[in-house]
Amino acid sequence: MSTEKAIPDDRKAFYDEIRPHNMAPLWEVLHALVAKEPVSPVQTVRWRYDDVRSYVMASADLITAKEAERRVLILENPGLPGQSAVTQSLYAGLQLIMPGEIAPCHRHTQCALRFVMEGDGAYTAVDGERAIMKEWDLILTPSWQWHDHGNESDGPMVWLDGLDIPTIRFFDASFAQQGNDEYQLDRRPPGDSRKRFGSNMLPVGFEAPSKSSPVFHYPYAEYREALEQMRGGTEWDPNLGLKLQFINPADGGPVMPTIAAFVQMLPKGFKTAGYKATDSMVVTVVEGTGKVAIGDVTYDLKPRDIFVIPSWHRHAFEAQDDLVLFVYSDKGMQEKLGIWNEQRDSA
Amino acid sequence: MSTEKAIPDDRKAFYDEIRPHNMAPLWEVLHALVAKEPVSPVQTVRWRYDDVRSYVMASADLITAKEAERRVLILENPGLPGQSAVTQSLYAGLQLIMPGEIAPCHRHTQCALRFVMEGDGAYTAVDGERAIMKEWDLILTPSWQWHDHGNESDGPMVWLDGLDIPTIRFFDASFAQQGNDEYQLDRRPPGDSRKRFGSNMLPVGFEAPSKSSPVFHYPYAEYREALEQMRGGTEWDPNLGLKLQFINPADGGPVMPTIAAFVQMLPKGFKTAGYKATDSMVVTVVEGTGKVAIGDVTYDLKPRDIFVIPSWHRHAFEAQDDLVLFVYSDKGMQEKLGIWNEQRDSA
Amino acid sequence: MSTEKAIPDDRKAFYDEIRPHNMAPLWEVLHALVAKEPVSPVQTVRWRYDDVRSYVMASADLITAKEAERRVLILENPGLPGQSAVTQSLYAGLQLIMPGEIAPCHRHTQCALRFVMEGDGAYTAVDGERAIMKEWDLILTPSWQWHDHGNESDGPMVWLDGLDIPTIRFFDASFAQQGNDEYQLDRRPPGDSRKRFGSNMLPVGFEAPSKSSPVFHYPYAEYREALEQMRGGTEWDPNLGLKLQFINPADGGPVMPTIAAFVQMLPKGFKTAGYKATDSMVVTVVEGTGKVAIGDVTYDLKPRDIFVIPSWHRHAFEAQDDLVLFVYSDKGMQEKLGIWNEQRDSA
Amino acid sequence: MSTEKAIPDDRKAFYDEIRPHNMAPLWEVLHALVAKEPVSPVQTVRWRYDDVRSYVMASADLITAKEAERRVLILENPGLPGQSAVTQSLYAGLQLIMPGEIAPCHRHTQCALRFVMEGDGAYTAVDGERAIMKEWDLILTPSWQWHDHGNESDGPMVWLDGLDIPTIRFFDASFAQQGNDEYQLDRRPPGDSRKRFGSNMLPVGFEAPSKSSPVFHYPYAEYREALEQMRGGTEWDPNLGLKLQFINPADGGPVMPTIAAFVQMLPKGFKTAGYKATDSMVVTVVEGTGKVAIGDVTYDLKPRDIFVIPSWHRHAFEAQDDLVLFVYSDKGMQEKLGIWNEQRDSA
Ligand SMILES: [Fe+2]
Ligand SMILES: [Fe+2]
Ligand SMILES: [Fe+2]
Ligand SMILES: [Fe+2]
Ligand SMILES: [Fe+2]
Ligand SMILES: [Fe+2]
Ligand SMILES: [Fe+2]
Ligand SMILES: [Fe+2]
Repeated sequence: MSTEKAIPDDRKAFYDEIRPHNMAPLWEVLHALVAKEPVSPVQTVRWRYDDVRSYVMASADLITAKEAERRVLILENPGLPGQSAVTQSLYAGLQLIMPGEIAPCHRHTQCALRFVMEGDGAYTAVDGERAIMKEWDLILTPSWQWHDHGNESDGPMVWLDGLDIPTIRFFDASFAQQGNDEYQLDRRPPGDSRKRFGSNMLPVGFEAPSKSSPVFHYPYAEYREALEQMRGGTEWDPNLGLKLQFINPADGGPVMPTIAAFVQMLPKGFKTAGYKATDSMVVTVVEGTGKVAIGDVTYDLKPRDIFVIPSWHRHAFEAQDDLVLFVYSDKGMQEKLGIWNEQRDSA
Repeated sequence: MSTEKAIPDDRKAFYDEIRPHNMAPLWEVLHALVAKEPVSPVQTVRWRYDDVRSYVMASADLITAKEAERRVLILENPGLPGQSAVTQSLYAGLQLIMPGEIAPCHRHTQCALRFVMEGDGAYTAVDGERAIMKEWDLILTPSWQWHDHGNESDGPMVWLDGLDIPTIRFFDASFAQQGNDEYQLDRRPPGDSRKRFGSNMLPVGFEAPSKSSPVFHYPYAEYREALEQMRGGTEWDPNLGLKLQFINPADGGPVMPTIAAFVQMLPKGFKTAGYKATDSMVVTVVEGTGKVAIGDVTYDLKPRDIFVIPSWHRHAFEAQDDLVLFVYSDKGMQEKLGIWNEQRDSA
Repeated sequence: MSTEKAIPDDRKAFYDEIRPHNMAPLWEVLHALVAKEPVSPVQTVRWRYDDVRSYVMASADLITAKEAERRVLILENPGLPGQSAVTQSLYAGLQLIMPGEIAPCHRHTQCALRFVMEGDGAYTAVDGERAIMKEWDLILTPSWQWHDHGNESDGPMVWLDGLDIPTIRFFDASFAQQGNDEYQLDRRPPGDSRKRFGSNMLPVGFEAPSKSSPVFHYPYAEYREALEQMRGGTEWDPNLGLKLQFINPADGGPVMPTIAAFVQMLPKGFKTAGYKATDSMVVTVVEGTGKVAIGDVTYDLKPRDIFVIPSWHRHAFEAQDDLVLFVYSDKGMQEKLGIWNEQRDSA
Repeated sequence: MSTEKAIPDDRKAFYDEIRPHNMAPLWEVLHALVAKEPVSPVQTVRWRYDDVRSYVMASADLITAKEAERRVLILENPGLPGQSAVTQSLYAGLQLIMPGEIAPCHRHTQCALRFVMEGDGAYTAVDGERAIMKEWDLILTPSWQWHDHGNESDGPMVWLDGLDIPTIRFFDASFAQQGNDEYQLDRRPPGDSRKRFGSNMLPVGFEAPSKSSPVFHYPYAEYREALEQMRGGTEWDPNLGLKLQFINPADGGPVMPTIAAFVQMLPKGFKTAGYKATDSMVVTVVEGTGKVAIGDVTYDLKPRDIFVIPSWHRHAFEAQDDLVLFVYSDKGMQEKLGIWNEQRDSA
């Protein structure tokens, strides 16, 4: 800033002298380091699906699935250039898988979710159990669990990948392995884990194989019906409408330790009062149209549009039709660390 | 025992001398107090529904619901006479409610479950939300939550009441209140809590009002379908078949802190290997026929029969048809106290 | 009660008819079973050490340690005759061990605490580590951990045994084993566990062997100093004075899952306002003199006196000198089960 | 790398086309993002206290405490230039406070620890309670608790500041406030919290004001004695010697949710077998001399030297004298997120 005080020469000399010793004066940066309120480099940004879909499809001609390993276009936050990050802690990408293509079996520290944007009938297999994926389904591939996927349908499939890649990089904790086989034997039938763990029942003696949800498929058909049935009895939250967290039924917490996922409904005509929170959110429009104002940016919303609400950015929604949103964020991590915070405008 | 050594006279005199001081010699009772294995006063016992149903129905002529407050016949363990206990820690009773009858709103420390034995269409309301009860449904009325019930159908209804009455008495911790009204205003529509909390989703900011499950209705239609779907993918436990615990989705634990509830399925022809555990179980036959051997007692099983498996009694099942059982026990309490134990015979 | 309504003949006949079927009418006992407030059979009772010490000592002449296995006089609540219980859930006894006597190595489900009443220099060994016991020390022998004790000093030693015997009996979960040896080899030096775990430090990778505290010796010298130092900075609780719970440093909870232990200090002249809670307490006077009023009973207090405050009995203390009390109760269990409750009179 | 395949022109064109849409191809970076093993930008680095002490002292002449707010020289990892970070998630600095200087009362989201390098008698006050700081003492100023400090001694004081600044920045969750006063009234005497919470006792009804330890002062005199006493009974861990974690006695976990702190002792002559873990460690030599090999770097060790062991860098110690080390790292965070990992060479 031009009004910044110039640094006296003796200090400059001192700073130069200590720099080779890997030292620097705190007092020049204290207020930036310990900010009064979050000042995020993350930018508010949106991807219109109508704009980007053609690039996703074009990638099929550009590179084979085999060569690409994953044919994904990263959604990169313009405030974090070159970091393959959609927010500081999370990653987003649009993955295309063409009929007959597969991704061989592998595992990694990183937790991943998939949210189906278009297509029907590809599968993701986790620990030998397939989930047949339909539009708007949520699928988890938790940390260090073997997984593979393939498209046995006759059309292309696109999903949104949400991972904790920047977090694992930040903590320097990445491990990855390739399996010996292209795909896993079907050890359990499709839907088995959901049937086992998804109805408020757990097998006697169940011990969670990981800190993530033993349910790894949350079908749209199910969660959408729950939303619809809840409309009647709900007192709508003035700031959030109806916002539900997908949970791990084994502990009532977020689906994975590093990624929290939500579905949010705003009925036709509903306008939320302003809200801000310290988690940075990646939002996908599932149904309906409307508007969102994030700070001084306003977006109109259409299905399949994806946008980012950075930490501590006041935002408010307006639903023209019933609006259904899928959201993932680092709220679960922040709560574990005791640092999550929110502020609500009164309605 | 006749082989017991006689107590020398000087000891007898000493025991007589200290008794008025409320003292007694440990050495005379040590081995009974600290037993090598559980020696339960609880007896293996069964109630054939065909035998007891007429008494339940007869109670309607004997006493009005208003006079009785609850028209219930206690199922009392013959090993615990006069204690209104089906096992040392739990209570069971068969409640009859005739068309038009109600139980006014009240609450108490005791946790209760209801398991519908016959009839269709009565309701239980918990905190202003009604559950419409159908055959084999499980309904919870957790500790200190207001509840009432009524029968607006045109037939009688019978359910099994399972409570922790002996436990609350043991800990001297009973509190109870009558509400001001006969019934609660409908604050939320029927099924609301199940829709809210029963699909692996919890509202953002949800804080549990109690240590019990926020879902208080587990309909047979739902859990039975889950069982059916699981048949294909299940490796049957040789000692238990398929045994699922009803859980509190807010923490993955038992439905209520003092009562654990389960559904168990054994496919046609299945014989379980012997099993014993330190929880005493109250078992109701829901579907199918078969046999159970408990120690040296054998019962043939028919729907609606109720029987008790005392702590550390080896037992094994044999399913003539697909057998479905509803079980409640004190396993959850024992696990909290670090004392639950099991032993499995090899298959 | 004489004012109780007579039971009509048809009902009597019905009760007689259903009794052989192990059934009984709830409506005759409902209000006793689901009481408005706790109505404990436990009686307020006190053992003056001056009165009972001679009996404890006399037991040495009456029976050898070898024959007795444990030379203990049970403190039995007069409200629970023949149950070897000091409250409904807990046990108390005074154990005497003479010079040269030992108790061979064994283990059991029951959790035990020892609180040293007189003598100095006997040891308790837990998992191969000895605690040298001094007056007013608290020693734990947690569930299923091998333990033995012996008196290598040249005087008799008396301690108060506090166990969860009635609770383990209630849940039918008792197991016990004798070891192969009379005493355990010293695998670790005396005080090792306290030094390891007692200074707010835990070894990296520590995994608790049980749900009980890894510290099993809480020396009087240490906790007494802490009390003294706290006097200055303490805002005295009007109902409790200064009441501290001995905790398990591995989780911040009670020392053992079934027994909670406390030390309470009331400075000279302090009078507490009335208090009641649902845990039944066993209290030992460590230092000072004073009075306690429990319901309509008043006791004057002297060191080594032991008394019982039953559940939900209003009580208040008056300290003539600085009064230090050791307390154990079932509060930890009740909290785990969600049923603990308290009521405070205003000061 | 020179052997890297050139990117074909059509792909380059495609990448250029999608870049303005904030999109990028995953396949060009996949292996860097999901690494087979941690590849940390953090560098192994050491600050010799003899080298840097003069700069710390010189800062007193360069700037007043008032102007500086905090007179601290940041220890910056050369692999993270300009980031004020000692590892990716943590911060370190050397703070100098001269006689009579104070830091006014304030609070912030960031958790901080202080480890005293030299001097004696300054204080840190947390929530109105002062800790008088001596050499090698550990003091915590947990998230959002008011704190101030001052030097009422007559010599300079230097401590190592350890904070979670980079983590709070990563999660965009920084909040800070200045108090109204220069210092807090003494609401409680020095040492009060340690006396209250540090002896395996917690006040009845204690509710933790934060997720951090209620003990905020871990004096060297205490933890050093514990180490000494443990020498006898310890089986030395071949990879770690004797490594203890400072814990939060209210839950048995790390002292603060974002920073784990440890003290490690290696007896004279001890050589550890190689070890690596995913947490990056900041290590201060407290006592003794020796060597550490970290990857292919070897440092000789002297008291007050500070060095960094980056994630997944194999390291091994050799103790010439008894070696005592103070360590802080992000292990606690990684464990909460389910991503902490270690590897041990056999001895
Ligand atoms: Fe912005
Ligand atoms: Fe993957
Ligand atoms: Fe029996
Ligand atoms: Fe009731
Ligand atoms: Fe009484
Ligand atoms: Fe024992
Ligand atoms: Fe390196
Ligand atoms: Fe600060």
